[in-house]
Amino acid sequence: MQGTMMHTPLSLNHLLERAGRLFAGNEIVSRLPDKSLRRHGYGEYYRRTRALAAALRGLGLRKGDRVATLCWNHHAHLECYFGIPAAGGVMHTLNLRLAPQELGWIAADAQDRFLVVDDVLLPLYRQFAHLHRFERVVVFPFSGAPVPAEHADYEALLAAADPDSFEYVAHQEDDPVAMCYTSGTTGRPKGVVYSHRSTVLHTLVASLGDFWGLRGTDVVLPVTPMFHANSWGMPYGAVMMGVKLVFPGPHLHPEDLLDLVQQEPPTLSLGVPTIWMGLIHTFEAAQTPGAPNHGRWKLPRGMRSLVGGAAVPESLIRAFDRHGIWILQGWGMTETSPVCTISYPRAELRDADADERFRRAAMAGVPVPLVDLRVRGGDGADQPWDGTSVGEIHVRGPFITGSYHNVPADPEKFTDDGWLRTGDVASVDALGFVKISDRTKDLIKSGGEWISSVDLENAIMAHPAVAEAAVIAIPHEKWGERPLACVVVKPGQSAELEQLNAHLLEHGFARWQLPDRYEFIDAVPRTSTGKFWKVKLRERFPR
Amino acid sequence: MQGTMMHTPLSLNHLLERAGRLFAGNEIVSRLPDKSLRRHGYGEYYRRTRALAAALRGLGLRKGDRVATLCWNHHAHLECYFGIPAAGGVMHTLNLRLAPQELGWIAADAQDRFLVVDDVLLPLYRQFAHLHRFERVVVFPFSGAPVPAEHADYEALLAAADPDSFEYVAHQEDDPVAMCYTSGTTGRPKGVVYSHRSTVLHTLVASLGDFWGLRGTDVVLPVTPMFHANSWGMPYGAVMMGVKLVFPGPHLHPEDLLDLVQQEPPTLSLGVPTIWMGLIHTFEAAQTPGAPNHGRWKLPRGMRSLVGGAAVPESLIRAFDRHGIWILQGWGMTETSPVCTISYPRAELRDADADERFRRAAMAGVPVPLVDLRVRGGDGADQPWDGTSVGEIHVRGPFITGSYHNVPADPEKFTDDGWLRTGDVASVDALGFVKISDRTKDLIKSGGEWISSVDLENAIMAHPAVAEAAVIAIPHEKWGERPLACVVVKPGQSAELEQLNAHLLEHGFARWQLPDRYEFIDAVPRTSTGKFWKVKLRERFPR
Repeated sequence: MQGTMMHTPLSLNHLLERAGRLFAGNEIVSRLPDKSLRRHGYGEYYRRTRALAAALRGLGLRKGDRVATLCWNHHAHLECYFGIPAAGGVMHTLNLRLAPQELGWIAADAQDRFLVVDDVLLPLYRQFAHLHRFERVVVFPFSGAPVPAEHADYEALLAAADPDSFEYVAHQEDDPVAMCYTSGTTGRPKGVVYSHRSTVLHTLVASLGDFWGLRGTDVVLPVTPMFHANSWGMPYGAVMMGVKLVFPGPHLHPEDLLDLVQQEPPTLSLGVPTIWMGLIHTFEAAQTPGAPNHGRWKLPRGMRSLVGGAAVPESLIRAFDRHGIWILQGWGMTETSPVCTISYPRAELRDADADERFRRAAMAGVPVPLVDLRVRGGDGADQPWDGTSVGEIHVRGPFITGSYHNVPADPEKFTDDGWLRTGDVASVDALGFVKISDRTKDLIKSGGEWISSVDLENAIMAHPAVAEAAVIAIPHEKWGERPLACVVVKPGQSAELEQLNAHLLEHGFARWQLPDRYEFIDAVPRTSTGKFWKVKLRERFPR
Repeated sequence: MQGTMMHTPLSLNHLLERAGRLFAGNEIVSRLPDKSLRRHGYGEYYRRTRALAAALRGLGLRKGDRVATLCWNHHAHLECYFGIPAAGGVMHTLNLRLAPQELGWIAADAQDRFLVVDDVLLPLYRQFAHLHRFERVVVFPFSGAPVPAEHADYEALLAAADPDSFEYVAHQEDDPVAMCYTSGTTGRPKGVVYSHRSTVLHTLVASLGDFWGLRGTDVVLPVTPMFHANSWGMPYGAVMMGVKLVFPGPHLHPEDLLDLVQQEPPTLSLGVPTIWMGLIHTFEAAQTPGAPNHGRWKLPRGMRSLVGGAAVPESLIRAFDRHGIWILQGWGMTETSPVCTISYPRAELRDADADERFRRAAMAGVPVPLVDLRVRGGDGADQPWDGTSVGEIHVRGPFITGSYHNVPADPEKFTDDGWLRTGDVASVDALGFVKISDRTKDLIKSGGEWISSVDLENAIMAHPAVAEAAVIAIPHEKWGERPLACVVVKPGQSAELEQLNAHLLEHGFARWQLPDRYEFIDAVPRTSTGKFWKVKLRERFPR
């Protein structure tokens, strides 16, 4: 057979060219630090992005060089998403929620050569500047203030560059375009490197009808930071389909987001559960006549809301559903680009009642195309998809990382037969819905039997006096490990061991599964991405 | 940078595994020759397809061997789509509308080793069996009649095979999975070879929200034959998303299709314009009280209808719109997998009036992601996207053929810089909408000026007395070429040169563009895919 298809490499440059040609008039809106809105079309976006690429080449960027970004969600950050790869560079998003020491360590580990930083984040940059020397620091004048003379001015660089004569740096489809560090709930953060190929494939898969369902008529509000797994990949999908984008900038408080939603009503939004919990509470509090902000906001009926990064409580899904907003839960990791599973309305559940629909919506969802998923039991065998057998999730596919930057091959993370060990413990049911029950590191092995810390936490948090609960394992001479519950009590409430354990017994736990000890704390420590940071609790309560 | 993504090859086998796991209960429905419906779930589909693959291995199929199919649209043909590649083979769909000599030539050119044929199509097979010897002929007992003893029985082979122990034949993503011959309106048919990679990428792109918008809750009716550019790729998308499929089998008459639509109402259908013209005429004729079949049918409101293969008249789009059905026009070729452009509602046209929306819907549409498209003028320069400048469409991308089976590199088909010359003449407007105006071979060059045969045909067909018109070039001593119009007059009507040319002048044509001659014929000859077959007219009217 001599006939073949063309060997055209997958490329972000193609998507950028496409957007410049087809979607010149579609808007990209950014909220600035002073809360005013800047708006321009994809035509200007295209020219600015190519000007950025030309400017980076002018600064001496070589193929494969890392360019760090330390930015909020806005149009210039989107320019970095395509402009840095267009110039042959690798965009490395720095997480502005991290401690300065950690940022310095990460920038050094990635060997970042240049930095693009929001002017409003220069104070943070100065706290880790001594830990890693960027050759060039390019300041984006997000606030409009003059750029300090010792740094390059993003806007001046773009104005001086020529987008028309810029030529894309040649590449293979496996060449890197972006990198992002894991949140490091256990151990050092590790760098994940995305390629043209993996990014284009992830974008195509995640954009499909049952998942993001992206259409050119969508108005997308990405609240998920662009430094969290590339805003879950949405910026790439938005440019591919030419959707209107509304970037919230640094204003992520519920009142700010509700104001923005009035100005530019979205049809699709994305963010972690904490964001939406705050938003619905603020909104509902304003519904009472006479309450502050009464009548100020409407919720955008018909909006889809992609929620991930942590488990979404069913109560939150129901709360939004009452306002005509459908929450689509997804699960994934920095290592997986990140979309691995999404919970969507299945044909098989067309006649299911509301309870069943909500129960499924509160699960992690169904594996998307190109992702292979298996659940491995403690004996190393694949667990059946019966909705009850649990094991560790392994995933494999063309947008899942096969190795970390600067980290030797690690059998703790990758299996011999080429799968990523996610560290998440789950069951899968007959329809393919994944239900995460725990992290492998958070399971408690007591007398040879597993106790799920997540199940205990959920049950304890259902007690009316409890605001938050995190359960960890502590060593035990006889049983190996036993559960310790760290509990945050609601203001004005109290709770004690007998009372909480009685509550757990009522909820179906066996006596041997109950915590032997409760510690009452002020707050559960959280990682920069909002997850329970159990490492910190284990340090505080080593036994 | 040492971090890399996994090198997992794109593969149809992954999509098959996914469907078997996730969509076991979703239905595949086939209409049998006796018009009864057979239905089973993707679970059975999965087992049958793997059994087919195991059986083909058992028959001695080697990697890369071609397995021809000569089948209507039904569940067994869908099994071939995935089962033949799973066994390492290449599915070669034979077009049952072709003349037996042509089928024999094509089977020999493809060196087909095996054949899967519907029992009801054995009479056709026997007409070309002497032209190419298939090593094994496997008969699918579509009608339920016993299979002749000299052939293998598809169902018996499946029953004897073991799907559980079958192992996929290892492959690279560029390995071939299917081939299809061009319709050969000019010259010999040529074999186009699709790979795992090209097929998966085409499936992902075409399934996106603005194009097919495939969702698992869809019910898809593929009227487009599975031997026309793989039913435009829909079978792959259907399996990827687990949609309910309704195959019409051999029953494609308007009344049959309308009956099927009552039984299994689709949300998405696909077919050439001729099919939908017949359907709407039959349906509307039945609306008159007292007419035959009055009250027998309802049209499925809300259905999307993908139409391609030939230009879709605006009147057809409007006719369906009145019944709540939206026609999405696409353009492509066997060489392009086939989806290159689709006309969809653009955000920029949200406030456009109905006339503007219908005008756009009647265009070929906007290039889809991964397809590069340019329009080359006669001087070899790219034409601007201004809606008026015309030239030949060139396309490039990972699901566009780079070479034909058994055909040496041909500069008539491929440019030096790696684009496919489509032979279609078009303009593109500022929103990226492509408007096909002609085939390069159908343009008429008169006194150094081009005359569009398609424009003349459309205007002549707008005359009330005319049913069909096809315009060809005839040689002329002075002008080089001049237009000749071949016209089919409606029953009971008449027309002549003066009258038709006066009509054309009213429609804005210049005097020098008018046909010098009209030939009144009984019917315009058509190719097996329903296109005007101008080669035949040129043979009949050489001067």
